[in-house]
Amino acid sequence: MKNIPLILMGCGGVGRQLLQHMVSCRSLHAKLGIHLRVVGVCDSKSLVVASDVFSMELGDEILLEVCRVKLDGSSLLTLSGSGEFQVFANSEIPKRIIDIAALLGKSTGLAFVDCSASSETIGVLNRVVDLGCCIVLANKKPLTSTMEDYDKLVSYPRRIRHESTVGAGLPVIASLNRIISCGDPVHRIIGSLSGTLGYVMSEVEDGKPLSQVVKSAKSLGYTEPDPRDDLGGMDVARKALILARLLGRRINLDSIKIESLYPEEMGSSVMSTEEFLGNAISLLDKNIQERVHKASLNGNVLRYVCVIEGSRCEVGIQELPKNSPLGRLRGSDNVLGIYSRCYNEQPLVIQGAGAGNDTTASGVLADILDIQDLFP
Amino acid sequence: MKNIPLILMGCGGVGRQLLQHMVSCRSLHAKLGIHLRVVGVCDSKSLVVASDVFSMELGDEILLEVCRVKLDGSSLLTLSGSGEFQVFANSEIPKRIIDIAALLGKSTGLAFVDCSASSETIGVLNRVVDLGCCIVLANKKPLTSTMEDYDKLVSYPRRIRHESTVGAGLPVIASLNRIISCGDPVHRIIGSLSGTLGYVMSEVEDGKPLSQVVKSAKSLGYTEPDPRDDLGGMDVARKALILARLLGRRINLDSIKIESLYPEEMGSSVMSTEEFLGNAISLLDKNIQERVHKASLNGNVLRYVCVIEGSRCEVGIQELPKNSPLGRLRGSDNVLGIYSRCYNEQPLVIQGAGAGNDTTASGVLADILDIQDLFP
Repeated sequence: MKNIPLILMGCGGVGRQLLQHMVSCRSLHAKLGIHLRVVGVCDSKSLVVASDVFSMELGDEILLEVCRVKLDGSSLLTLSGSGEFQVFANSEIPKRIIDIAALLGKSTGLAFVDCSASSETIGVLNRVVDLGCCIVLANKKPLTSTMEDYDKLVSYPRRIRHESTVGAGLPVIASLNRIISCGDPVHRIIGSLSGTLGYVMSEVEDGKPLSQVVKSAKSLGYTEPDPRDDLGGMDVARKALILARLLGRRINLDSIKIESLYPEEMGSSVMSTEEFLGNAISLLDKNIQERVHKASLNGNVLRYVCVIEGSRCEVGIQELPKNSPLGRLRGSDNVLGIYSRCYNEQPLVIQGAGAGNDTTASGVLADILDIQDLFP
Repeated sequence: MKNIPLILMGCGGVGRQLLQHMVSCRSLHAKLGIHLRVVGVCDSKSLVVASDVFSMELGDEILLEVCRVKLDGSSLLTLSGSGEFQVFANSEIPKRIIDIAALLGKSTGLAFVDCSASSETIGVLNRVVDLGCCIVLANKKPLTSTMEDYDKLVSYPRRIRHESTVGAGLPVIASLNRIISCGDPVHRIIGSLSGTLGYVMSEVEDGKPLSQVVKSAKSLGYTEPDPRDDLGGMDVARKALILARLLGRRINLDSIKIESLYPEEMGSSVMSTEEFLGNAISLLDKNIQERVHKASLNGNVLRYVCVIEGSRCEVGIQELPKNSPLGRLRGSDNVLGIYSRCYNEQPLVIQGAGAGNDTTASGVLADILDIQDLFP
C-alpha cells in the first residue's frame, strides 16, 4: 500500500468537502493501492497536526470532527489535543509546517493541498517546494502572484497540480498539459470561466434587467457575498492568467485587459454592497440591455469570456454567434475552446459544471491521486 | 535528464507520425528534462533494434529513415544493419523483444508503444507486463480481447495508458480516469465516437442518400478501404467496450448490442467492396431516408452513438434532440458526454477531432510523457 502524507490548508467549503471525499473514498483508494495519510490540517488561525508525522495521522473521526467544527464557524483551537494530535495557534503555524516539510519532504514525501482562497499561503508554499514537497492547489492566488513566485512554484513541474484553479474539476489543466507536452502549439483559447457571469449573461439575453438578474443570482447563492467580486471580472482574469502562464506567457495580472461590469464610481471603496444592490446597479440596466439588443440584431449574443491569443490576454464581454459553443451556453456551465495544430478548424471543447464545492474538491482529489508515482 | 527507453510496435500512419513528433519535440522534451530513447521499432515482419539497448538508441536519422522506408511500402529489412543497430526478421521478433524487456524492464524501465491495429501484439504485451514494462496503446485490440487478457494488461494500472484508443487524442480516458479516481460515480456515457459515422449521419440528415454519402466519404479518405468496416459499428463497439471496462464492467465484445448499417446479406463474405458500393448499398438509401424523415417530424436527428448506462452497453442509431450536444454535432468531430454525481444535470462534454494520424500520435506522445515518473 502506497502512503501519501499530506497537509490540507484551508477548511472552507472546498477543504471540508475534500476531507469528506477522502474519508468516503477509503476503500476505493485501498483498491488502487493508495492510502491518503492526512498529517495536518490548518486554517488561517490554527494548525492540527498528528503527534508523530512519520507514523501517525489524523484519523477519519478527527477529520470529520474538523469538518463539523469549521461548518459551525468555530476555530480548530476548540479541538482539544489528545495523544493523537496537537493543536497550534497562529504565530507558530509557519514554523511548524516548515519543520514537517523538512522532515517528510525528502523521505516519505509530503503533499501540500491548498484549498484556501488566501495569498497568505504563498510564503509557505514557496519554501516547501525546495524541501521536496508536492503542491496541489485549488487556490488561484499562489499562481497569480508575481512571476518570481510563479517560477518558484512550478520549478519542479511534475510536483505541482492545480486542476481546480480553472473551471473547478473540469479537466482543463490536465488537457492543456497533455497538448503542451506533445508539442502541439496552442494558438488560441476562448472560454467562459465564471458560472456566475455565465448565468448573468444568459439571463440578460432573455431580456431581464441586469440588476434583477444579479439579485436573483445572489439569492440563489451563485455569487460571492459582494456580487461585485464576480462582476468586476478579477476572478476570471486570474483564471486567464493561469492559462496564459501555462502556455508560457510571462505576464502579470496587471497586463490583462479586464472589463468590469460596473464602473469605478460603484466600487467597494465608494459604496457598500447594500448601496450597490439597492440603487446603483439599476443604473447599469439600460446600457447592457442596449448592447444585448444590438448584438441580437446581428444574430449574436453577449458572453463574458476570456481570450488568449498571441500576446493578447483579455477578459470581458464579447459579441458571439448565437450558434457557437459559447453562444449556446446556458446557465452556469463553464466552457473552454482550445485551438491548436491538432484542433485547428474545430476547437477541442471542454464543457460542464465549473463551480461548486463537490466538483472543485473532486478535482483536487484527482490531482492528489495523479501525483502518486512521486511517492516512494 | 530523465531517460525513457521505448519500443514502438507498428509503423503505419500513426506510428510514423509518432516518430516524427518525437524527433521534432526533442528540444521541448529536453526543456522538460526528458529524453525519449527509442531502442527498437518493429512492424509485423521485422524488428530494428539498437545494438546495445542499455546505452544506445536508434538515432533520429534512423527513425526518419524508418518512416521513409515504411511510407514507400518497403520492409524494414531493407535497412542494412550497421554498428548502431541490428535488423531481425519475423520468427525472431517475439524472443528478441522479450529478451530486451527482461533486460530493461526492471532496471532502466521500458515502455512498449503499440501503434499497430493488430491482435498479434497481445501475446508480447501480456508477457512484458510482468517484466516491469509500461504499455502505451493506440491499438484497441489488446483492450478488447478476453477479460483474462484485459486483467493481465491492466494489472499495474499506473503502468498503462491508452488515450488514443478512444476519440484519438481527445482527453477522454484521462478525464474518465480522473473522475474514477476521485470516487465520482459515472451513471451514463453517451458519445459519437466515429468520425466516419458522424460525417455520414450529418450528411444523410441534409437529405443526401446514404449510398452517395458513403462514396463521397470514401473518396475523401474518411473511411476504411472497405467502408463496411466503419458501417458495421465494430470499431465503435470496441471503443464502447474500452470505456465500459474502464468503468469496471466485466463484459466482452460479444455482449455489446451492435447495430450495423448494412445487413448480413451484404457482408464481406458475401460480396466484394466493389459490389457493395456498386449496387447493394443503394438498396439501403430508402430505409435510412425514412428514418431521418420520421425523426425530423419530432424535431430530432439520427446519430450513431454508443451508450453505456447501468448494465446497458450498446452502439447504434439513436434519435436525439436536434438541440443536444450530440444532435448539434456536424462533420467528423467526436463528442462524449459523461454523467456522474458531479456532472449530473448537465454532462461533462468533451468534443473535437477524434481521428487523424496527427492527433492520434499526439495522444500517444502525451501518454508517454505522462508515465515519466515511473522511470528512474
